[in-house]
Amino acid sequence: MADVTVHPNHKLISSEDVEGTKVYGPDRDEIGEIDHLMIDKPSGRVTYALMSFGGVLGMGHSHHPIPWQALKYDVNSGGFVTGITADKLRDAPEFSDDSWGNREWEGQVHRHYGVDPYWT
Amino acid sequence: MADVTVHPNHKLISSEDVEGTKVYGPDRDEIGEIDHLMIDKPSGRVTYALMSFGGVLGMGHSHHPIPWQALKYDVNSGGFVTGITADKLRDAPEFSDDSWGNREWEGQVHRHYGVDPYWT
Repeated sequence: MADVTVHPNHKLISSEDVEGTKVYGPDRDEIGEIDHLMIDKPSGRVTYALMSFGGVLGMGHSHHPIPWQALKYDVNSGGFVTGITADKLRDAPEFSDDSWGNREWEGQVHRHYGVDPYWT
Repeated sequence: MADVTVHPNHKLISSEDVEGTKVYGPDRDEIGEIDHLMIDKPSGRVTYALMSFGGVLGMGHSHHPIPWQALKYDVNSGGFVTGITADKLRDAPEFSDDSWGNREWEGQVHRHYGVDPYWT
């Protein structure tokens, strides 16, 4: 369980520190942690955080993609905060290894979570 | 030593796959591998790859930051290719934990490697 290293005026974070960082929901309950990130190679943008839930929410998949824009780093809690609810996570579009690079699926996911697609 | 998973039309890559991926120099010799990435939290952009050299080039530091823009993924070799030479790496601006968030140092590094700063 890595804590994110925070420095004053320090906006850069290590991918190793992000992996294992806790994610808190709208009511500040812990809803899971970040397992790894997906990165758009051409632009070098982080596009999704793959969250793991440890069975807390009864999610079928061990990992679940969340658009990076739906997460906000919170210095006080040392983790990421999201407005995404457990119900919203359960209702998310089905996800498989073929989903990556499928713009239709990617569009659905971004609409589902109410954030702009990273490619616009 | 992770291989990067490549799918047709697949521009997304896992941070776990990037970590451990080999980096090849201008003459396609292996010069090291990627240890981890630095990410700009507000924008979600990958800013630097921290390379490890395993003493190959006699580098003083175990990890060495390379601007992400100086690396290009190469499907054929399954790794990243860079135009950065061993001499260029050895002459890079000194680096410490305080360097992160120091825009003067960051500007020097980007100029040294001849790529545009990620914040412009």
